[in-house]
Amino acid sequence: MRLATFNDGTPDGQLLVVSADGTRALAADIPNLLAAITAWSSAEPVLRALAKRVNAGKGEAFDPAQLRAPLPRSWQWLDGSAFGTHGELMQIAFNLPPIETDRPLMYQGLSDRFLGPADPVPFPSEADGIDFEGEFGVVVDAVPMGVTPEQALSHVKLVVQINDWSLRAIAPAEMKTGFGWVQAKPACSMAPFAVTPDALGEAWRDGRVCLDLLVDWNGKRFGSASGAPMDVGFHALIAHAARTRDLVAGTVIGSGTVSNHDYAEVGSSCISEVRAIEIIRDGRPTTPFMAFGDIIRMEGRIPGGAAPFGVIEQQVVRHSGAAR
Amino acid sequence: MRLATFNDGTPDGQLLVVSADGTRALAADIPNLLAAITAWSSAEPVLRALAKRVNAGKGEAFDPAQLRAPLPRSWQWLDGSAFGTHGELMQIAFNLPPIETDRPLMYQGLSDRFLGPADPVPFPSEADGIDFEGEFGVVVDAVPMGVTPEQALSHVKLVVQINDWSLRAIAPAEMKTGFGWVQAKPACSMAPFAVTPDALGEAWRDGRVCLDLLVDWNGKRFGSASGAPMDVGFHALIAHAARTRDLVAGTVIGSGTVSNHDYAEVGSSCISEVRAIEIIRDGRPTTPFMAFGDIIRMEGRIPGGAAPFGVIEQQVVRHSGAAR
Repeated sequence: MRLATFNDGTPDGQLLVVSADGTRALAADIPNLLAAITAWSSAEPVLRALAKRVNAGKGEAFDPAQLRAPLPRSWQWLDGSAFGTHGELMQIAFNLPPIETDRPLMYQGLSDRFLGPADPVPFPSEADGIDFEGEFGVVVDAVPMGVTPEQALSHVKLVVQINDWSLRAIAPAEMKTGFGWVQAKPACSMAPFAVTPDALGEAWRDGRVCLDLLVDWNGKRFGSASGAPMDVGFHALIAHAARTRDLVAGTVIGSGTVSNHDYAEVGSSCISEVRAIEIIRDGRPTTPFMAFGDIIRMEGRIPGGAAPFGVIEQQVVRHSGAAR
Repeated sequence: MRLATFNDGTPDGQLLVVSADGTRALAADIPNLLAAITAWSSAEPVLRALAKRVNAGKGEAFDPAQLRAPLPRSWQWLDGSAFGTHGELMQIAFNLPPIETDRPLMYQGLSDRFLGPADPVPFPSEADGIDFEGEFGVVVDAVPMGVTPEQALSHVKLVVQINDWSLRAIAPAEMKTGFGWVQAKPACSMAPFAVTPDALGEAWRDGRVCLDLLVDWNGKRFGSASGAPMDVGFHALIAHAARTRDLVAGTVIGSGTVSNHDYAEVGSSCISEVRAIEIIRDGRPTTPFMAFGDIIRMEGRIPGGAAPFGVIEQQVVRHSGAAR
């Protein structure tokens, strides 16, 4: 089942059930996706019934330009960093000591807004080191404190695709405080479709999204890393997050930047990794961060097949009120 | 003006306007405080009119035990660490190197729930090092990215009192990752009344809450530090937070643990500081962290005068489903 959110002018938008081929949709008689995930056990059968109808040819064409993030806002966003290759390269990129921990890495980020897949992305300054981070994520229903990784898997109700915007000139300074990121992690973006795990078929396994994430920067292929080799699966990330708190329904858990050890072949899902590879190879980074006007495109794809989440395609723009 | 939230069984509760003497209340014809702060320019005059009526003797007595946090949940919680003395003592408590930064310290925390002033506080294990952190906080309306500290002050619509629960056995390990805290910072608690800055009179000045925070642990005075000597005022914390993001209406900004340099006289607002003082004095900490059954009481008070936020008085309990 594929779900999307139509821009009806309300803060949370209008929930749509979208056909498997992505061409038609039926409006759900549930106010929005946040309401649906909050009462998932009753909402799911209603939405599945609509999915059956829309896949049988009911529903209407919709304007993809009017789709927002499937969750335009949520109560909680916890982003992991579950690809070891990403972590190793970031230490080189930022000249940081290795992170000595046997714990999954995770930070709490801004969740009061997720940008839509085609929204322009405003930043105050190119000097902040504007970077994208291509990720996969999951949305859970209410998860009780102390859940085990095994139990956690059943709480994954939806899978999403995310661009975790990052400001690299600020990130290391914030990391060194130990307090995590505030300025370096503005709002993320989401691809238009949230899908139930079953809609991914074999690509959802071991708590991992085993799709290639195709990343194009200004029309040029930048990466096609696979989501399969997460060192820590989503179920373990959820259990980590729920160690000392109940997770509110609608919590989004991110994989961190999709990154593969064979980056020389598959490329990367963020600029900082490429800069680290350049440091290793040439002694210094040469790829600049993003400029205003740049376009980033991201699409999770079954090799040679479908793109279940649709496409993120966004332009970076100067914030209109940028004072500094 | 004093506002509170009555437990009517809804997620956000019922907004009450409370008399200045705290004895009576009128229910507001606005669904809840999150809705009010989201449309503050239209909500404020409505609420001020109710405040006038309730202060003229209208309204009814209410059951303090039925008050929740004034904001039972919000879209964003950003907690500063604006008392330099606290930072210095925490480095000693945790044997951490000094944080080398000229930036305000701030982390993004859990905002999907704020516990009420009398709610029991469930934790999975005493071994996690259960500690309180007495703080003041402010609630802002929508703040545009790039706001200056001077502009930021006018966005402070409400002032609150907070207990930022912290798990000290986990905190240093999470700090060392640079990712900030997830497990070490479960849900915070709020005192029952959110007040407009004018209700604090002279105690609200320079973007600081100049009240003594009386902290009692199991009935014994633990601290009475003043909120006045913040190294960074709330207006500067807001500007810091809004450097690269618009702040959503309802964002709560915290001061961090209230801490004074004359701690030998005024005591502390968290256990870890006392343990640091013991390390300085005796070479080792002797005050244990909290045990299940312990009671913490916190009350911001004008010296010799009123307690505008009311009282937090909570018991720490074992989480019923604690698996480990």
